[in-house]
Amino acid sequence: MYESTMIAPLTGLLSLIIAGFIYLYIKKQPRGTLLMQEIEGMIHEGAMAFLKREYSALTLFVICAVPILWFFYREWYTPGAFISGFLCAITAVYIGVKSATRGNSRTAEAADKSGQAKALSISYFSGSVMGLSVAGLGLLGLGAWCWKLAGDPGIIRYLNGFTMGAGSVALFVRIGGGIFAKAADLGAGLSARIEAGISKNDHRNPGAIADNVGDNAGNIAGMGADLFESYVASIIATMAIAATITIPEFTEKFPVLKDRDEGAVIILFMGLPALIAVAGQISSFIGIFFITAFRGKRPAAALRSTIFVADIVFIALAALVTGLMEMPKGMLWAVTSGVLCAIALGLLAEYSTSGPPVSRISEQARYGHAAVITSGLILGLRSTCLPVLVICAATFTGYLSAGIYGLGLTAVGMLATAGVALTVDAYASIADNAGGISDMSGLGISTRNITGSLDRIGNTTAAMGKGFASGSAVIAGIALFAAYARVAGLQVINIMNPAVLSGVFLGAMIPVFAAASTMASVGKTALKVVEETRRQYREIPGLLEGREGVKPDPRACVSMATGASIRELIVPVLTALLCPIAAGVLFGTEVLGGMILGTAVMGIFLSLFMSNAGGAWGNAKKYIEAGNFGGKGSDNSRAAAVGDMVGDPFKDTSGPAMNTFIKATAIVALIIAPFLKPGGLLGL
Amino acid sequence: MYESTMIAPLTGLLSLIIAGFIYLYIKKQPRGTLLMQEIEGMIHEGAMAFLKREYSALTLFVICAVPILWFFYREWYTPGAFISGFLCAITAVYIGVKSATRGNSRTAEAADKSGQAKALSISYFSGSVMGLSVAGLGLLGLGAWCWKLAGDPGIIRYLNGFTMGAGSVALFVRIGGGIFAKAADLGAGLSARIEAGISKNDHRNPGAIADNVGDNAGNIAGMGADLFESYVASIIATMAIAATITIPEFTEKFPVLKDRDEGAVIILFMGLPALIAVAGQISSFIGIFFITAFRGKRPAAALRSTIFVADIVFIALAALVTGLMEMPKGMLWAVTSGVLCAIALGLLAEYSTSGPPVSRISEQARYGHAAVITSGLILGLRSTCLPVLVICAATFTGYLSAGIYGLGLTAVGMLATAGVALTVDAYASIADNAGGISDMSGLGISTRNITGSLDRIGNTTAAMGKGFASGSAVIAGIALFAAYARVAGLQVINIMNPAVLSGVFLGAMIPVFAAASTMASVGKTALKVVEETRRQYREIPGLLEGREGVKPDPRACVSMATGASIRELIVPVLTALLCPIAAGVLFGTEVLGGMILGTAVMGIFLSLFMSNAGGAWGNAKKYIEAGNFGGKGSDNSRAAAVGDMVGDPFKDTSGPAMNTFIKATAIVALIIAPFLKPGGLLGL
Repeated sequence: MYESTMIAPLTGLLSLIIAGFIYLYIKKQPRGTLLMQEIEGMIHEGAMAFLKREYSALTLFVICAVPILWFFYREWYTPGAFISGFLCAITAVYIGVKSATRGNSRTAEAADKSGQAKALSISYFSGSVMGLSVAGLGLLGLGAWCWKLAGDPGIIRYLNGFTMGAGSVALFVRIGGGIFAKAADLGAGLSARIEAGISKNDHRNPGAIADNVGDNAGNIAGMGADLFESYVASIIATMAIAATITIPEFTEKFPVLKDRDEGAVIILFMGLPALIAVAGQISSFIGIFFITAFRGKRPAAALRSTIFVADIVFIALAALVTGLMEMPKGMLWAVTSGVLCAIALGLLAEYSTSGPPVSRISEQARYGHAAVITSGLILGLRSTCLPVLVICAATFTGYLSAGIYGLGLTAVGMLATAGVALTVDAYASIADNAGGISDMSGLGISTRNITGSLDRIGNTTAAMGKGFASGSAVIAGIALFAAYARVAGLQVINIMNPAVLSGVFLGAMIPVFAAASTMASVGKTALKVVEETRRQYREIPGLLEGREGVKPDPRACVSMATGASIRELIVPVLTALLCPIAAGVLFGTEVLGGMILGTAVMGIFLSLFMSNAGGAWGNAKKYIEAGNFGGKGSDNSRAAAVGDMVGDPFKDTSGPAMNTFIKATAIVALIIAPFLKPGGLLGL
Repeated sequence: MYESTMIAPLTGLLSLIIAGFIYLYIKKQPRGTLLMQEIEGMIHEGAMAFLKREYSALTLFVICAVPILWFFYREWYTPGAFISGFLCAITAVYIGVKSATRGNSRTAEAADKSGQAKALSISYFSGSVMGLSVAGLGLLGLGAWCWKLAGDPGIIRYLNGFTMGAGSVALFVRIGGGIFAKAADLGAGLSARIEAGISKNDHRNPGAIADNVGDNAGNIAGMGADLFESYVASIIATMAIAATITIPEFTEKFPVLKDRDEGAVIILFMGLPALIAVAGQISSFIGIFFITAFRGKRPAAALRSTIFVADIVFIALAALVTGLMEMPKGMLWAVTSGVLCAIALGLLAEYSTSGPPVSRISEQARYGHAAVITSGLILGLRSTCLPVLVICAATFTGYLSAGIYGLGLTAVGMLATAGVALTVDAYASIADNAGGISDMSGLGISTRNITGSLDRIGNTTAAMGKGFASGSAVIAGIALFAAYARVAGLQVINIMNPAVLSGVFLGAMIPVFAAASTMASVGKTALKVVEETRRQYREIPGLLEGREGVKPDPRACVSMATGASIRELIVPVLTALLCPIAAGVLFGTEVLGGMILGTAVMGIFLSLFMSNAGGAWGNAKKYIEAGNFGGKGSDNSRAAAVGDMVGDPFKDTSGPAMNTFIKATAIVALIIAPFLKPGGLLGL
């Protein structure tokens, strides 16, 4: 039965093949006017330049990390898994960004020539390349290890290296991309308005392209890397938990399996997460292609339906898989609770960043700037309560259904359909870019209406995506926490021990510090962008006057922002790595366990708070500019614009960065667990 | 030896006598012009009206709570302790507010007639009445119970009622006062500026008095109630821990005491916290009267010196007490770590809300409103990290020095000199009010310079006071947590149990929800104040025109704000009470333990984040208005004003309210602990 897990790498391969065909189909679409092609080319080139620099920095990191891993582990499985996780993650992100930056001008052209349905379909399928590659490469990479595991299940203990490889990419790309995106946005806007008195998307603005590149760096690359990490973390953590289940535990929790060969069933337990993930990926295929069935329907409903279709198919397939494997029903309930959790978190995030809460913020604009800020902060704080309740309910259901192993299955269930979730999310950025291109290349008003409406729908689905990403990060984090406790051989992590208590408090400070430093980085990097554009206005004769044939040099802006955003990575990355190492080495395994919990609690709060407050501010500004409460140009819209500016780094830099911190602490803990003394060097 | 604890009620009584003499001395001082007397009278009357309504609501709460306590406990000690804690707390707050509202006009008059030294001394001594009464009534109330305990040490288990009585007052007065203060401030400012085009302190503004009343309601009454709660909570929790120490634990941790009669030593352990508190109170006397020695020195240095003098004397006395009782040295280290923690937290809070961080925010004003907000949020986030580190270090030192009992001693050490800390804190509000009175009554420029400079110093010491209050809340909370675990008979609170894990997550949401709802309450209540002033402008003929003899009706504003702020209390108070009850009853004692921890972690973060960000914004505005970065009236000062408006409810309502939530969850848990099933009704 375990041999059936061989289907995982095959499904992964199949996903890549389908993604390849979709990519070829996208590339075949018409690219529009020469100007559009030029803009597309610059965005594409900028995004690739960003990735290249990020990947160089990452490679340096890998080169340093591999000998250290080898030195401690004294075998090649862990460093090998680390390298393979790293390679899968960077490939997935690369493919996704390539497709997204090819899809944007083609979406605009389709909106111009063929109408909304075609434009929706092109942007959606461009996004699906990212979705399919992330889940596909996850399955392929992990699947290859599953094949190896069939020969020696003990290897599982080295497989955390794979998660760490994926996690490194997430840490660099999510944070770096987030800083780049908002610094370029802010810098391009500031310099255009203040220095030159032109609009941000003016062709004379050297920062305009950097802004568009930033959307791809932050939302496409960052989100892809983040979900790749959560995806593989949930599967590997569950396999790791399965490997540590002892015979008495096993028969106590699953009496129905008592008659079967216990050793063999544990091997099946290790295979189940991979099979569930395969079921999820097949459901994602179906969901994605269902977009064609909904053609002509309201686009927002169509997008959401693809996710619901995938979820329903997935639950059916999961029932089939657990049924065929003669597993207890609890397994299915755990998986289902993950699916329901994903849906609930998406809907809650959507509610918080649209509808009544947003119009309440917009209404506050008449009391001035401070009222907009205050009401957004209130909304952000409030919006964290229900999602945390949902997360607790889902985890707890998983635990009641199938014990500590069920915690892992809940995470796998939540992330199994990441393919379609990520597709919808990537769609949002592509639609956003398509809108930018149609603005910059001066397409007609009806075209811009179409791209505008696709962009607006994208805003909503992007909020859902953020809710999903935050929630899955913490659920994967909880699974990693459980795996860590197992690997470290802990029976209890007792918060009545003041050392552990301090661990929880200190762990909570990691995301706080990271949130502050990433927000500060956006400001610093934006100033670099402003300096560079200012230099170009000064040194390129005729640029500001708009003299014929004189063009800005957007590459310099992109390069400046990339370099600065990578430098700004150093502090948060070191924080994420060194805090758990220091805590574990000095104070021991139990304190480190407390630290993971503290990071998770504060991380999920900050992630939801910042993403939702930021999203709501952004949408309140759009709501007013759409003609409510005074409309564009009114005092109210100026007040709302301040909220939007505060909210930008909240929702696109610091909030999402929290996701990687939640997981990073736990992953580092898992990697170092075998070498820690229980009481640490201080012998607590 | 235990009989020496009888010194506690005597010290308490002595404190009240000294406070009484100081109050008489203050009342004898000249009150200034008729207008000043009239303003003072209205502020005093308003503050008393606020307290009266708060106390009526509280009495209703007590009337409901006493039968419930009786029903469950079936004895009169717990309800009796509850009522006595309630009575001591309301008396202390009443005396403190009375003295503060008598000291303000006298401070202004002294500044006018006798100069800065005399003005400083009057405002400081008016504040000391609050400091002495809070600690004095704490010692008196607890001391009376100590006397009872000598006959039957078992009564200690009912004494949590005293903490709950104090906690109820803190919950109502801290939150209600905070909402009142900022709603009146915001409402009075808005209506004056927008409706009438006059300044906030204009004599035609019906809200001006309410604003001044608010300072007393929020800072004096709220801070007093909060510290009274922390003070008694730290002592009772430590006594409760002492009562549960078992013989093996005792000889293992304190081998030096092995030869002594163990039962008797445990009784001494119960007496020690009271004696340490007595030492602290005597040190406070000395510190307070040292202000006269520093007369003529720089006022800021003089204020700080009184605290340092008290701390040094206190450590010496604590060494004496532990020496006389032949206690192990560890006891003294635990107490000292509390003292150092208090000093460090005060200095860190001062640093975050003055000096370089504030000038950095002021500098950001040139990039506009959003930059002010963002930089303040960054500062607020960052400013939480070091204090949390200090808190962990202090708790942990306490634990290493004297085990779980040491945790309690650290809290007692931190709070023992609350008398002088609160004096300095109350001074700030009195100086602020004196400044308001000299503005409103048109005193000369040199007088206003004096009151202005005293007010500025007060801003800094107020920030120190907030840091101290937050830190002592969480340290008292940790002591309560330890006492709870002991009382509930828990050996471990294991976060590997997903139910406990969920408890931590859910507990963290209590302060988040409370922060959001108190911030929203400020806005709602401010609108009521605006409505009322608008009504007066409309219905009182000649008011706006400033016709001779026509006066506004400030009472109506105060009454409106009081009523509204009390209504807004309902939701947060019910949250603080019902969440721990629901968790304990449904999920059992261990999950409730997790919840206390979650509340403490998130509570201390939000408390420090909001207080420091708010304080820094306020000071950045003042810094710019003092002539930096463009000075008053510039674009920069308008941008900074937005930060100040966002920061007001942060630093004076929601941030401080967190302190009471941290403790409330733990106090409620302690009270219900004897009746909980370990696994809850759900039998987890």
